[in-house]
Amino acid sequence: MAEQRTKCLIIGAGPVGSLAALYAADRGWDVQVYELRGDLRLPSTTPLNFTRSINLALSERGISAMRNCGDADLLQQVLDDTIPMYGRMIHDINTYGELIEYAQQYDIHGRFIRAVDRARLNKLLLDSVEKTPHVQLNFNHKLQRVDFKTRKATLCPTTPSPAGVGPPALEVNFDILLGCDGAYSRVRSQMMKFTEINFSQAYIDMHWCEFTIPPSTIKTPTSNDGFATSPNYLHIWPSEKNLFIAIPSVDRSFTCTLFASRETFTYLKRKPERILNFFESNFPGAAALIGENELQDQFERNPHLPLLSIKCAPHHHPAGVILGDAAHAMVPFYGQGMNAGLEDVKVLFSYFDKHPDTEEGRGRALGEYSQYRVPDAHAINDLALANYWEMHAGVKSPVYRVRKWVEEFLAERVPSSGFETQYARVSFRVERYSVVRRVVERQGRIMLWGLVGLVPVVVVGFWLGIRGWGRMGWGRMGWVR
Amino acid sequence: MAEQRTKCLIIGAGPVGSLAALYAADRGWDVQVYELRGDLRLPSTTPLNFTRSINLALSERGISAMRNCGDADLLQQVLDDTIPMYGRMIHDINTYGELIEYAQQYDIHGRFIRAVDRARLNKLLLDSVEKTPHVQLNFNHKLQRVDFKTRKATLCPTTPSPAGVGPPALEVNFDILLGCDGAYSRVRSQMMKFTEINFSQAYIDMHWCEFTIPPSTIKTPTSNDGFATSPNYLHIWPSEKNLFIAIPSVDRSFTCTLFASRETFTYLKRKPERILNFFESNFPGAAALIGENELQDQFERNPHLPLLSIKCAPHHHPAGVILGDAAHAMVPFYGQGMNAGLEDVKVLFSYFDKHPDTEEGRGRALGEYSQYRVPDAHAINDLALANYWEMHAGVKSPVYRVRKWVEEFLAERVPSSGFETQYARVSFRVERYSVVRRVVERQGRIMLWGLVGLVPVVVVGFWLGIRGWGRMGWGRMGWVR
Repeated sequence: MAEQRTKCLIIGAGPVGSLAALYAADRGWDVQVYELRGDLRLPSTTPLNFTRSINLALSERGISAMRNCGDADLLQQVLDDTIPMYGRMIHDINTYGELIEYAQQYDIHGRFIRAVDRARLNKLLLDSVEKTPHVQLNFNHKLQRVDFKTRKATLCPTTPSPAGVGPPALEVNFDILLGCDGAYSRVRSQMMKFTEINFSQAYIDMHWCEFTIPPSTIKTPTSNDGFATSPNYLHIWPSEKNLFIAIPSVDRSFTCTLFASRETFTYLKRKPERILNFFESNFPGAAALIGENELQDQFERNPHLPLLSIKCAPHHHPAGVILGDAAHAMVPFYGQGMNAGLEDVKVLFSYFDKHPDTEEGRGRALGEYSQYRVPDAHAINDLALANYWEMHAGVKSPVYRVRKWVEEFLAERVPSSGFETQYARVSFRVERYSVVRRVVERQGRIMLWGLVGLVPVVVVGFWLGIRGWGRMGWGRMGWVR
Repeated sequence: MAEQRTKCLIIGAGPVGSLAALYAADRGWDVQVYELRGDLRLPSTTPLNFTRSINLALSERGISAMRNCGDADLLQQVLDDTIPMYGRMIHDINTYGELIEYAQQYDIHGRFIRAVDRARLNKLLLDSVEKTPHVQLNFNHKLQRVDFKTRKATLCPTTPSPAGVGPPALEVNFDILLGCDGAYSRVRSQMMKFTEINFSQAYIDMHWCEFTIPPSTIKTPTSNDGFATSPNYLHIWPSEKNLFIAIPSVDRSFTCTLFASRETFTYLKRKPERILNFFESNFPGAAALIGENELQDQFERNPHLPLLSIKCAPHHHPAGVILGDAAHAMVPFYGQGMNAGLEDVKVLFSYFDKHPDTEEGRGRALGEYSQYRVPDAHAINDLALANYWEMHAGVKSPVYRVRKWVEEFLAERVPSSGFETQYARVSFRVERYSVVRRVVERQGRIMLWGLVGLVPVVVVGFWLGIRGWGRMGWGRMGWVR
């Protein structure tokens, strides 16, 4: 009775689309996945689009989403392929001009995030999808249009047919469509023709470019097991207007990203030999790790890409929904982009579980999911933007460090206070993003009022002190008057 | 030497696209206009899309843009086909439950806006375009894609070819592309693939539906020359949550628009016989003008449409630019949508005049235009949204009326003050929208501080009064104490 299975069409076979396929198959749906690019597991597939993908941070939300996907072995395979990062390693120079580095732990309880290679994660997910029954994976297909009324998608193979003529388009019927096709989602733009969607996209005034720190060839007792610097940290070179970060890879290299304004990129591109001097004055020590000759090469060879922030509401039509970057592309400064996308899948399927698997039931599930998830998507989008400040300037600011210390002190010594840093709430828990934002704003107010509350205490204390002091000397002379 | 003319491709033959064609031809460019719909001057063309167009308000900006378009007769023909509106006519009921109406003049100097039928205006513009040399008008062509790098547009005829097969696509080369293709602009979505454009679209929680008040059959000395109510006003039925307006047409009817929340529309659609009661309790007197039987018919027959507000920045790519609704669709509450679009054309060509007619010169003109115009587009967009409050609630609010009175008093009696109402600045002048917003905000602050400044005057006056009064009686008793 294969005809009676719910036909689920998934556009995009990245991490989010692949995970969605696992969840959908686990529900007993008949799943068709179409991906624009080739199968990245084949050596012939140009990895072009995946060199553009920085190493990602996998945290609790992403892990929790993969835990219940129907493939019991998947999560362990994924975790085995990651490197724990226990905190940030800040690179700076001291007042004598010497290179220094100091760690900021992410969590007083020792919890950590994991560096993961997007391509390796994607391969593991695709392998799992491939061995799952009732799922068909199709690569090299471009979505042309979707008719959400008749529930038909038109796709075109991107590989030219042998005759040399344009390949024939393909019509796919679906009961439900999951759009996991990234920031420039075609599912989204098609959906916007069928339903009223508020939408905004903003390019941040900042471009990025990837660099690589190769494994170390030095083997000394103090060497970092073949890594050029300590592997269990997310390395940060903050500077006033720019940012350079490095994330460890399993092959003992670091995948690094330069973030700088468009103007700076234009300035550097005009004379790429400026890059070394720029690095020396902004990110002390980084150029030496990359290799001074490599630096300019990589800057010229690797693409210079914009940062896009996308919000939309709702995320759904009664016949389909957009997930991941398609619904909420965000800047990478919280390391939550992929985690939020994977969590979308988990949350979405929890709504399918609440309703009967009929057209009406699925439509209601999509509506409820969208209403629940939109505020969370907006919240993490805003938090990610705000975190840029923390990463490039905040980590060195005394106010930030005092706040972090107070929060950690309360979290450790007064657990009943419920105080926890925003970072811990976002990265080590699965609390709703919108709740995290609200709670952390409340914590901030409490800390502010705590400080304000200290004022009378200090004043009263000071007055009592004066009295006491008065009784013992100078004051007494006045007092007995 | 026709080959050496600059090739200008215009997408969209609405009022903005047609006016742009006149300006471009006047510059000596070779102009190709492609319009998705049929020629609306042909009786065979379904006017469907134009019943959806409410009567528009033509004001100084639109007029000024048509004044210098190269066709000296056009403006007078357009103006002859309009009806002056000197102010708002507010319809309400008094405390005895009787229908009342009272006028609010737009301007103390008697300046007025003009009611114009969008289709009639468009026809006049198309006639003018057609008789202009070096312009070719093409209807029934859908833009498929634009390659802004190679400056090639692909268009498809929408009329099926006689053989019944899909009609062949058409490639058009251009030096410069003007996208005048409305709120759902394809030029814009194509441009967004080639350049970084910040973009937002928001659906306002309000739908609209068109109604018609037929000409009056009653001919009495007090009748309005065949109009069902006074023709020289924009009629407003304000209500707490909804709005109904009527704009006169040359054929002595009124084109009316109901604005109400989606929820209200859903409520009414469920049982359309509710509409009469809804009108009676929200818009007293309006149902009688439309005809009580017609009311329900028209509500069911005419489309229920959303309101879309669009902002983007920049408006250009070095090879093209978007104008009118494509760049800044706005809610209709300021009657400035079309005026802003026509003004775009005038402003754009003033920038072309400043630069040589070369690829580089035009590219710089587009860049400067976009930088100049974006803040104005954002400003009128915001003002239009804010004006909804004025139209549905403000017109009856005492604060609004006091402010209007003070501004008008100052404008009339103290012209050197430069005070003028926001409405007059937007509708009767061509001052930049962004400047209007700034100036009016300043005026508001001055009036507020004026009021605050009155406080010491009143206090001192009161004190002097008490003193004076005191000297003459009760006070003296205290005073001599």
